Amino acid sequence: MIVIMHPEATLFEIDNVIAEVEGKGWQTHLSQGSGETIIGLQGNGQQIDPFQLGQLPGVRDTMAITQKFKLTSRAFRPEDTSFKIGDVTVGGNQLAVIAGPCSVESREQLLETAHAVKEAGATMLRGGAFKPRTSPYSFQGLGEEGLKLLAEAREATGLPVVTEVMSPTKVALVSVYADVLQIGARNMQNYDLLNAVGQAQRPVLLKRGMSATIEDLLMAAEYILRYGNNQVMLCERGIRTFDTKYTRNTFDVNAIPTLKELTHLPVIADPSHAIGVRRYVNQVTLAGVAAGADGLIIEVHPDPDQAASDGAQSLTPSQFFELMSQVKTMARAVDRVV
Amino acid sequence: MIVIMHPEATLFEIDNVIAEVEGKGWQTHLSQGSGETIIGLQGNGQQIDPFQLGQLPGVRDTMAITQKFKLTSRAFRPEDTSFKIGDVTVGGNQLAVIAGPCSVESREQLLETAHAVKEAGATMLRGGAFKPRTSPYSFQGLGEEGLKLLAEAREATGLPVVTEVMSPTKVALVSVYADVLQIGARNMQNYDLLNAVGQAQRPVLLKRGMSATIEDLLMAAEYILRYGNNQVMLCERGIRTFDTKYTRNTFDVNAIPTLKELTHLPVIADPSHAIGVRRYVNQVTLAGVAAGADGLIIEVHPDPDQAASDGAQSLTPSQFFELMSQVKTMARAVDRVV
Amino acid sequence: MIVIMHPEATLFEIDNVIAEVEGKGWQTHLSQGSGETIIGLQGNGQQIDPFQLGQLPGVRDTMAITQKFKLTSRAFRPEDTSFKIGDVTVGGNQLAVIAGPCSVESREQLLETAHAVKEAGATMLRGGAFKPRTSPYSFQGLGEEGLKLLAEAREATGLPVVTEVMSPTKVALVSVYADVLQIGARNMQNYDLLNAVGQAQRPVLLKRGMSATIEDLLMAAEYILRYGNNQVMLCERGIRTFDTKYTRNTFDVNAIPTLKELTHLPVIADPSHAIGVRRYVNQVTLAGVAAGADGLIIEVHPDPDQAASDGAQSLTPSQFFELMSQVKTMARAVDRVV
Amino acid sequence: MIVIMHPEATLFEIDNVIAEVEGKGWQTHLSQGSGETIIGLQGNGQQIDPFQLGQLPGVRDTMAITQKFKLTSRAFRPEDTSFKIGDVTVGGNQLAVIAGPCSVESREQLLETAHAVKEAGATMLRGGAFKPRTSPYSFQGLGEEGLKLLAEAREATGLPVVTEVMSPTKVALVSVYADVLQIGARNMQNYDLLNAVGQAQRPVLLKRGMSATIEDLLMAAEYILRYGNNQVMLCERGIRTFDTKYTRNTFDVNAIPTLKELTHLPVIADPSHAIGVRRYVNQVTLAGVAAGADGLIIEVHPDPDQAASDGAQSLTPSQFFELMSQVKTMARAVDRVV
Repeated sequence: MIVIMHPEATLFEIDNVIAEVEGKGWQTHLSQGSGETIIGLQGNGQQIDPFQLGQLPGVRDTMAITQKFKLTSRAFRPEDTSFKIGDVTVGGNQLAVIAGPCSVESREQLLETAHAVKEAGATMLRGGAFKPRTSPYSFQGLGEEGLKLLAEAREATGLPVVTEVMSPTKVALVSVYADVLQIGARNMQNYDLLNAVGQAQRPVLLKRGMSATIEDLLMAAEYILRYGNNQVMLCERGIRTFDTKYTRNTFDVNAIPTLKELTHLPVIADPSHAIGVRRYVNQVTLAGVAAGADGLIIEVHPDPDQAASDGAQSLTPSQFFELMSQVKTMARAVDRVV
Repeated sequence: MIVIMHPEATLFEIDNVIAEVEGKGWQTHLSQGSGETIIGLQGNGQQIDPFQLGQLPGVRDTMAITQKFKLTSRAFRPEDTSFKIGDVTVGGNQLAVIAGPCSVESREQLLETAHAVKEAGATMLRGGAFKPRTSPYSFQGLGEEGLKLLAEAREATGLPVVTEVMSPTKVALVSVYADVLQIGARNMQNYDLLNAVGQAQRPVLLKRGMSATIEDLLMAAEYILRYGNNQVMLCERGIRTFDTKYTRNTFDVNAIPTLKELTHLPVIADPSHAIGVRRYVNQVTLAGVAAGADGLIIEVHPDPDQAASDGAQSLTPSQFFELMSQVKTMARAVDRVV
Repeated sequence: MIVIMHPEATLFEIDNVIAEVEGKGWQTHLSQGSGETIIGLQGNGQQIDPFQLGQLPGVRDTMAITQKFKLTSRAFRPEDTSFKIGDVTVGGNQLAVIAGPCSVESREQLLETAHAVKEAGATMLRGGAFKPRTSPYSFQGLGEEGLKLLAEAREATGLPVVTEVMSPTKVALVSVYADVLQIGARNMQNYDLLNAVGQAQRPVLLKRGMSATIEDLLMAAEYILRYGNNQVMLCERGIRTFDTKYTRNTFDVNAIPTLKELTHLPVIADPSHAIGVRRYVNQVTLAGVAAGADGLIIEVHPDPDQAASDGAQSLTPSQFFELMSQVKTMARAVDRVV
Repeated sequence: MIVIMHPEATLFEIDNVIAEVEGKGWQTHLSQGSGETIIGLQGNGQQIDPFQLGQLPGVRDTMAITQKFKLTSRAFRPEDTSFKIGDVTVGGNQLAVIAGPCSVESREQLLETAHAVKEAGATMLRGGAFKPRTSPYSFQGLGEEGLKLLAEAREATGLPVVTEVMSPTKVALVSVYADVLQIGARNMQNYDLLNAVGQAQRPVLLKRGMSATIEDLLMAAEYILRYGNNQVMLCERGIRTFDTKYTRNTFDVNAIPTLKELTHLPVIADPSHAIGVRRYVNQVTLAGVAAGADGLIIEVHPDPDQAASDGAQSLTPSQFFELMSQVKTMARAVDRVV
């Protein structure tokens, strides 16, 4: 941390800042030029809130020079993290392709979709059994019955299963059936859930909150990694911006190269939520791959118009098949494989 | 719901839309002018996703004409909801003033603050025992020990206690000690928590998520109200916008008159979080009262520079005393009392 | 400016940065602790783009420690700037109240409104003759004819006139008729216009762009002040955020105390645009005064439902009269007068 | 336009709305079901502000069912617009690649860059002679001297020249030297400038404002098209969002497929401004092509660290050469050519 004093700060104010931070166990290093005085903090004192320090008399500004995220950072682990989920390696040269319906609705719906997405080239199956819905009056998911159907679909297809867990009390239950625990966007800062999932030692798909900064996302991952669980995929799923007339969210494609530089964790693009309109999903998918995503998660439903949730952004199996053909071409263009 | 067809939509496409919605149990009402054809839905069919309907061939746009929130709406309950918390009536002519430290840190810190805020005119005590922190390395709160201190402070001062609950598994525990259960901004869409709190039948302070729309907030309240619990205070605590250089958040003062019109629930302003800078808290507080807020929640700490969290936005007891004097004047100006 | 090097930066990289900035005429000051190396820049070298410097090998981050705005800053001029427009002093203890129709539509409409707002207590008259409209097919204003009507209304009422100028080519013309030149939100960074207005040596009402930061606004004012023209009112008129369902914009009430601290220029609140809904204008007006605004600009129209523009947010004369009564009470509550 | 009445609206209120809109020359069409009453407007009455109509007693909501943009819409012109600039066809199968420095700084700098980008495959040259800068103290461009250098670079390389015009008074001057008139993001709603450029009958590169909606952008284009000038390229250059820690703006890749559907005009991606960090420009460029952009505009400078503006996002000639090789591969993957 650096503290920049106002040019007109008095010596008394400077001493006061020094006393304050040294009282918290830091050493200080004073740098005085013709204009500003700068106080640098060194060593390992107690945590200091920069906003708080900034309120002391004579302080003009403060700057944290240490990144807050540690275990998730490239500095901590320079090489890419990769790990296996079933037979699939995530975080390497091969793109992970997770596909399936938003909600598990029935045995037929799920199995039909699972077989179709596998045939098209998907490597994991997604499907929601517990659904976080804005309205309490909307379909809330089949619950454990949905989890059982997902497990059955895995048996039938060999595809590992990704499904959301919404509550710390359900982590054990979902872990019985799922290969990957998904944290939804609305729960990205549900810390009790992050703690519970971190302890479960399962692979995690962590979705970025709709107004979470890159740093917020990495700090949420930090909650999981500090339990020794590195098997975390970060998922960019669209952010909330001022323009929602034609698309549900804004796909933050910038986040992909930024995250790839800041962290060693694999980054997954979710074009379905990121744009929310079926007929634009292909372009956003290809943009995600072009920008360097390590994988994709895409909603597919045998009859989107009848879907219990997110039908507007779900592809039909044949549309997904067509998309996968484009994804394969695109992957080659960026030296990846599907 | 209304479906607007493209001017060039074919009769086949129009029939298809009609068949689709009638298949979900709706009656339709066709309105054809010189230009657009409009299909109105009437009756009580199954829920339809407007985005999804909007993807059918020939559809130009759809519009939901029924508000999604029901129990929280003014239409459902035209008069203001008011309820008692201890001796304090919230939602009436008197402003509720909730004050106290961000985190409970020690017996001395809490009792000193509680006495001071009571003397200044606060009507409830706030204090965090479980703290949702962006970083796992930050102080996470004293837990149950903090709850006990809050209960002791209530005994000492008579002030009802407001404290956050972060997880459905902790609702029972927190309810033992607290008068009001607070849902934090990060958990506004943690539906398992909303369900648990709804069932607890306690007064709730529901904070708006940092990028939650007005409608999102009302839908979150709807989760609680459908358990028959109307004792919900909505809290505007600042939203996330593009400008964060000088303040932490943007106080959405527009939300106050808007919420007062849309819902019967009381609305509380949180100037401390909404601006995040101690020396601006007064102006934002006064603006909240002027705009029609039914109450305030303000962070006060005996030594903000040493606070474990949010020190930068906490007032000292004497600053709070001074603020309360201004609040009283302001309340009179808008025909309210403190 | 401060340059923070990566902990693992090499001496070569450090030397390279030093050479770079010294090559631009700066002296450097090296601060090396156990961890990071920090290079401070001192003196008066050429302008350096911090982003650009941040791209040099080994650089972790940079920080500008000097505020970019100079003439507009409190540091440059600690006391409040106040100036006279006609008989009205802006920037002192008295609130400036600018009122009138969005567009000048006719002689009758303007004179009726001008008399009504004067009677209610307004101190200046607003009215648009040149209208920036999103659609080229919307009413674009009466042009010079509108300016003449404004001048006539000034003669009739004694109220100084505020009107928008949209183009550098029109500054001379508008200056013939207007007392205050208004720069609209869409033109806040129209630098040729700012230059032209700066040279005109007239009082200016500078509206904040709808996504302009506080710093952007102050930098725009800086364009005007450097021509020696200090008679600039800054106007907060609502920003663009993610929630536009119930209100047109989000009134950034935080901007008022922030601007009052950063700059010596008077700050005007524009509740009409900031919320965009007539029945909420009163609450936002009062919030603006409570937060410390030095004045108000409010749209009033004798028949808002027939207004050529912005009718939805315009008050009737009798609503404005009622509002002014509330404003007077509110002004007293914050030790101001109207 | 559709007007939805409150369920509890009185017949008097309904009649009042009908009288209001019929008084503006519209025919109405009433649709009454079990719940809401809906009033449809038909014919060609005067423009009505939906917000304003929404304020009438008994009105719950209104909905514009006609798109505001006309000449720019696909409905008006279903086939892609393409046009020639020099030998380059924009809007067809070939990607337009516009490259060059942010600012024209010197003859050597410009000619060296022009030759380099041409060799790498660029088809047009960009360079700023008039620079809109946030600070009045920053380099403002070489003015006409810069324009002359651009014309010289065109002579030397054959590349058509794209350069910004900031003021209606400069349109004639810039048109003497430039092939394409650029409207910058800050001037997207500078209507006097749009009018002047529309009349100039030159190809235009219209940059999206940093918080302009898709609709705002199309309405700005509408200003130009109504002068019979269809030669307009729309440019997505990044929008302003809540996260600016690691990148300057957020590239709104969603805008590309959305615009391609809504309008017949070609869409250009500006990765340099959209992310603002040199080492991420490649990924964003590829994402833009993958999403369907018709062209690219990229900043290239022989010595970015010495650039007078935007050095942090400028590529070196050799980096651009490398990028063009990737762009060619990417173009093939989406069936385009460079």
